[in-house]
Amino acid sequence: MARVAVLGAGSWGTALSIVLADKGHDVRLWTYRKEQAETINTVHRNEQYLDAPVPEQVRAFHKLDQAVEDVSAIVMVVPTKAIREVCEELNNTLIQQPVIIHATKGIEPGSLKRVSQVIGEEMVNYDTEDIAVLSGPSHAEEVGRRLPTTVTVSSLNTDNAAFAQDLFINESFRVYTSNDVTGLELGGALKNIIALGAGISDGLGYGDNAKAALITRGLAEITRLGASLGANPLTFLGLPGVGDLIVTCTSPHSRNWRAGNMLGKGHKLDEVVDQMGMVIEGTRTTKAAYQFAEKQEIEMPITEGLYKILFADQEPREVVDQLMNRSKREELDDISALQGTDYLS
Amino acid sequence: MARVAVLGAGSWGTALSIVLADKGHDVRLWTYRKEQAETINTVHRNEQYLDAPVPEQVRAFHKLDQAVEDVSAIVMVVPTKAIREVCEELNNTLIQQPVIIHATKGIEPGSLKRVSQVIGEEMVNYDTEDIAVLSGPSHAEEVGRRLPTTVTVSSLNTDNAAFAQDLFINESFRVYTSNDVTGLELGGALKNIIALGAGISDGLGYGDNAKAALITRGLAEITRLGASLGANPLTFLGLPGVGDLIVTCTSPHSRNWRAGNMLGKGHKLDEVVDQMGMVIEGTRTTKAAYQFAEKQEIEMPITEGLYKILFADQEPREVVDQLMNRSKREELDDISALQGTDYLS
Repeated sequence: MARVAVLGAGSWGTALSIVLADKGHDVRLWTYRKEQAETINTVHRNEQYLDAPVPEQVRAFHKLDQAVEDVSAIVMVVPTKAIREVCEELNNTLIQQPVIIHATKGIEPGSLKRVSQVIGEEMVNYDTEDIAVLSGPSHAEEVGRRLPTTVTVSSLNTDNAAFAQDLFINESFRVYTSNDVTGLELGGALKNIIALGAGISDGLGYGDNAKAALITRGLAEITRLGASLGANPLTFLGLPGVGDLIVTCTSPHSRNWRAGNMLGKGHKLDEVVDQMGMVIEGTRTTKAAYQFAEKQEIEMPITEGLYKILFADQEPREVVDQLMNRSKREELDDISALQGTDYLS
Repeated sequence: MARVAVLGAGSWGTALSIVLADKGHDVRLWTYRKEQAETINTVHRNEQYLDAPVPEQVRAFHKLDQAVEDVSAIVMVVPTKAIREVCEELNNTLIQQPVIIHATKGIEPGSLKRVSQVIGEEMVNYDTEDIAVLSGPSHAEEVGRRLPTTVTVSSLNTDNAAFAQDLFINESFRVYTSNDVTGLELGGALKNIIALGAGISDGLGYGDNAKAALITRGLAEITRLGASLGANPLTFLGLPGVGDLIVTCTSPHSRNWRAGNMLGKGHKLDEVVDQMGMVIEGTRTTKAAYQFAEKQEIEMPITEGLYKILFADQEPREVVDQLMNRSKREELDDISALQGTDYLS
C-alpha cells in the first residue's frame, strides 16, 4: 500500500480519496482551508462538496508540506487557475519525487496549455512526459457511493500510467490506460463547453431531441479542435469523449450543466457564479477554446455561441435558435472534416 | 403541397403526421384498426400512443387502398415484423408510384436485412435504391409538442432524398441529408440494443457513470457491426449514432429503455412485453445482431450479454457485472479496431 496525497478537497478530490482509501492506501487530503481540514478530521464528512462518509484513513491537512511528506504519489485535483500556484509551493516543499497524477478537467486561457503541460512547466524536477492524467465519465457523487465507474489514465511515461492504474483500480472503479495524453486531457476539458450548452438548451425548455443534436454537433466540434491540437480523434469516441459528454450533459450532478441551466433560465453569468459557490471550469474553457478557434480558423459554432452568451451578453434563446436553424445540408459535413486529419485519412 | 400517406399510427407515425400537417400537406394516416381510425377522426387525438392534438388535416383510414389513393409519398412507420405484409398489400393496391420513405428502426432477424432492403425486395415496382429512410434522435412526444428536433434522410436515389427533406423540413423539425443509407438505417436499429442495456443498468440502480460507460462501449460495438455490414463508421458519430443513442438511452420516453429498466428490476421478458403493450424493436434487433456477430465472429460483448438476458434467462446483474469487470486494458482497443475499415484506415 502507498502513501498518497490528494491535493484539492472539492467533490472530485474527496471522491478520489475515498477510492484510494478503499484500496487500503494511506491518504492525505489537502485543502488550503484550515476549518475544512478540521471538519473532515473530526466528523469524517465533507458536506459542502460530497454527500458521503469519508473513511478514517483519509486524513485532511491544510499545510501542504505535511500533506506531501513521504508520499509516493500526488493526485492533483485543484482548479486550473490554482495549478501554477500549487506547483510553486510544491517546488519549495518536495524532497522526494512522487508520481504526479492530475484529475483536473480544464485548459488554461491565454496559453491554451493542457494541465499536464502547466504542471510540467512549473515543477522543477519533472518533465511534462512524466505527468499522468486521470479522466472519464465520473460523477463524484456516484464514486462516493461506490457505484460502478470507468475512467482512463494516460502518461507518456508508461511506467507512470501503469502505476496510476494500479493505484486506483478496484471492483467498482475500473481504470483503463490510453496512450493519448492530449486527447484524454482535451476530452475532459472541452466537454464542459458542451455541458454548458446542454444546460442552456434544457433551461430554455427545448427537450431531449434538441439536446441530443447539440451534444452530437458539439462532439464533432470539440473533436475537430482536439485533433488540431494533436489529439487522436478516436479518443473522442471513447470514455473521455462520448462517455464524459453523456454523463456531463444529461445529469443535474454536473455543475457545468447546472450553470448552463441557470443561464438558460435567464440568469446572468455573475449571478450563476455567485449562487454555485464552486468553480465552473466550462466558462474558462469556453474562453480558451474560442480564442484558439478564432486564431486557427476552426469552425466551432457552438463554442462561439456560448462565448457570446457568457462574455458578450447575447440572449441564450437567440443563440440556440441560430444554431438550430443553420441551413440544411449534408449531415456528415461536420464529421467528415475529421477525415483530413492524420488519424482518419 | 402534397398528399401523403403515413402507414402506421403508433407514436412515431402520429408525430410525423403532425409535422407533415404543419407543413400544409394533406395527410392520410393509416391504421389497421378501424376503431383507432374513427377515434382519430372524431376527437383528433391518438391518446394511447401520443399525448398531443392531431391537426384536422390529418385524416385516419383503416383501409389501405383509401389511405394511399393518389398520394405522392408514402411514409412507412410499421414495425419490422409487419413490413412484408404491408408491402404485399401495397402491391395489390398502388396504381401510381409514390416515393416511399420509411422511418422504422429495426433489422429483420434471420435475413439480417435492413428495412429499405426488405421494402425493395417486396415492392414490385421499386428498387431498394429508390427507398428513402428518415432517422435520428427524435422522441415522438417532443416532435408532437413542436420542440426542436433534427433528423437525417438518405436514399441512394438522391432525388428521393431531396424530396423527403423538402417534404418534412420546417423551423422546429430540421432535416439533414446523408449519402450513407446503410449507416443511417443500422444506427437507428442497433442503438435500440444499447438502449435496452442502458435501461437494465438503470433498473439495477447502477447510476450515470456506469450507464455512460455502457453507452460508450455500446457505440464502439454497434459501429463495428455497422462497418462490417457496409456502413460508414463516421455515421455512428453523428445524429443517427451518438445522437440517437443519447436520446434513447437517457430518457424514460424511450420504450426500449423502459423495457430494459423493467428487466433490470427483475421482470421477465414476457411480462415486460405484456405490460408495455407496444412492440419493443430492440429485442428483435438484439437477436438479429447476435446471430450476425456469431456468424461473422465480431466481438459484441454487450449484445451477447443482452441476448443471454432476453433469451437464455441469465440474471441481469450477473451479466452487467461481467461486462464491468472485463480485464483492465487499453481503452482505445475497442475503437481503434475501426481503423481497419475502409473509411478510417
